[in-house]
Amino acid sequence: MAVVAGASDLKKPAQEPLALLRSLVAEDLKGVNAAIVDKMQSPVALIPQLAGHIVAAGGKRLRPVLTLAAARLCGYEGERHISLAACVEFIHTATLLHDDVVDESDLRRGLQTANAVWGNKASVLVGDFLFSRAFQLMVADGSLKVLKILSDASAEIAEGEVGQLLTANNTATGETEYMEVIRAKTAVLFAAAAQVGAVVAERPEAEEEALRAYGMNLGIAFQLVDDVLDFSAEEAALGKTVGDDFREGKITLPIVLAYQRGNDEEKAFWRRCLEELEQGEDDLAHALSLMARHGTLEESLQRARGFADAARRSLEIFPDRPQKEALLLLADFAVQRAY
Amino acid sequence: MAVVAGASDLKKPAQEPLALLRSLVAEDLKGVNAAIVDKMQSPVALIPQLAGHIVAAGGKRLRPVLTLAAARLCGYEGERHISLAACVEFIHTATLLHDDVVDESDLRRGLQTANAVWGNKASVLVGDFLFSRAFQLMVADGSLKVLKILSDASAEIAEGEVGQLLTANNTATGETEYMEVIRAKTAVLFAAAAQVGAVVAERPEAEEEALRAYGMNLGIAFQLVDDVLDFSAEEAALGKTVGDDFREGKITLPIVLAYQRGNDEEKAFWRRCLEELEQGEDDLAHALSLMARHGTLEESLQRARGFADAARRSLEIFPDRPQKEALLLLADFAVQRAY
Repeated sequence: MAVVAGASDLKKPAQEPLALLRSLVAEDLKGVNAAIVDKMQSPVALIPQLAGHIVAAGGKRLRPVLTLAAARLCGYEGERHISLAACVEFIHTATLLHDDVVDESDLRRGLQTANAVWGNKASVLVGDFLFSRAFQLMVADGSLKVLKILSDASAEIAEGEVGQLLTANNTATGETEYMEVIRAKTAVLFAAAAQVGAVVAERPEAEEEALRAYGMNLGIAFQLVDDVLDFSAEEAALGKTVGDDFREGKITLPIVLAYQRGNDEEKAFWRRCLEELEQGEDDLAHALSLMARHGTLEESLQRARGFADAARRSLEIFPDRPQKEALLLLADFAVQRAY
Repeated sequence: MAVVAGASDLKKPAQEPLALLRSLVAEDLKGVNAAIVDKMQSPVALIPQLAGHIVAAGGKRLRPVLTLAAARLCGYEGERHISLAACVEFIHTATLLHDDVVDESDLRRGLQTANAVWGNKASVLVGDFLFSRAFQLMVADGSLKVLKILSDASAEIAEGEVGQLLTANNTATGETEYMEVIRAKTAVLFAAAAQVGAVVAERPEAEEEALRAYGMNLGIAFQLVDDVLDFSAEEAALGKTVGDDFREGKITLPIVLAYQRGNDEEKAFWRRCLEELEQGEDDLAHALSLMARHGTLEESLQRARGFADAARRSLEIFPDRPQKEALLLLADFAVQRAY
């Protein structure tokens, strides 16, 4: 378990909104972490070993924090949101395990991936276990409404992941297709996580929908910015290798826009690099210069800003509460972290 | 989609019990097949393509047939068992897709596996989709009891699969460990499938438990016999290559027993073949001769017979009905097909 970069330990001022949100739900979050450790146990020892590796690997717990904060924003005072937040994290973790197999990744958050340590087989099967365990937890909670929200989300995530597989190495991918992929593979779980908070609080439909919309828009903003950060050298210190998506031929918005606006020579360049995956030493730099020429990183961030603003507006119906303030700041942070 | 062996078309007299059972639920089974095709649809076209390949590949639909027959045996006259039987088949299909990735298999039931046609990535993700879709169907049915039975089963299946990974290439695997693996990876879903039939019929706990016990014992018998058939040359015509488990170093009961009863030289042979996977041309034949010397194939079949008998006895509490008769014959067939 080689630590390649102590990235997650960096305290950047821009991360304060997330820290603020986490501090507001600190006690609940302890409960979530305890539930996660408790519920990933199995007589088959490899399961908690492998699951513990990824669960403990310094994830931001962003999705379960959304569930916790949403429940508290809705005035909820019970305990159900804790095990449901753990469900949300289990579903997320299962998709990460399968993603890393699919992407043939060796590193995640600066640590070796589970598949690099234990092999693809174990990662696939432990992902299946965590996914099943999430449903067991939901069944124990007993709400068919929550089960519907999270089983719908799970099916959409899988559709989004397959969609991403189909757009990879395909420069003909359009903006609509890209947006549908990131909505399904990323934003839907943010949306479900936030909505579940309102459901346990038994709040009116409008508040549920507001929190769902907040999560959906926030998730899209986060993914857009992640896709920009993959090309943004200033963020190299944050534990990501610049240009990973480019090297794998993943088609993200900065590339979709650059391809559409490119002349024939530029289009040929993108096809060689992303479809044929024939890449030389200087190709990433050239790709960056083309994206700069067409302003596609900046434009992708503008889109992200639009979704972050939409996320903020969806919270208007809630009274002023510390959780609301922190969620508003989180929406800003989703985009600010790119600067 | 090359057809390598038209195995599933062979009409063997020994298959009559399964055909009888299927004929008793023929109308319901049509409904299940329609539900399967309907519910594997997705705007992401690769999903129904890939899922259709494996779902349509001539599976016996043994598990959904158990659900259907159990419901009818319990006098159920509604429709819920149809979509729940489709759930059971989706869960089974998802595990097959992930199994084939884990086993790096190229063939299943004489057809190319999905991972051989579309790659491992798509197989992992479409498996995830089918699994999620199964839970969506259960949520639509609305029974928390059914959700509990099938989410518990799913978690146990994953534990069994991880357990199988850990016993592979390990000649120190004991009989208890092997039995636990096949119970979890195979028999638990048979048990759940049969139990769900009683649940929808809202029958007393005793009938539910009887059908669960029937499924569990039947599943163990089937898996024991499958593991024997992997070494049993007479069955080569049935689409399986003899010795696959041996070549992969899978530790099944005939091997567990042969290893335990072997002298030092024999133990060294098993370790070389199954742990080091250093196998020469004559090693499978030698393995078969060692199993014959210690009578381990025959003894494994005797155990299977014991479980089949237990399955039969568990149905004693039910009145004589055609479904009961067919289920009793199916338990016999589970073992008879080895002769």
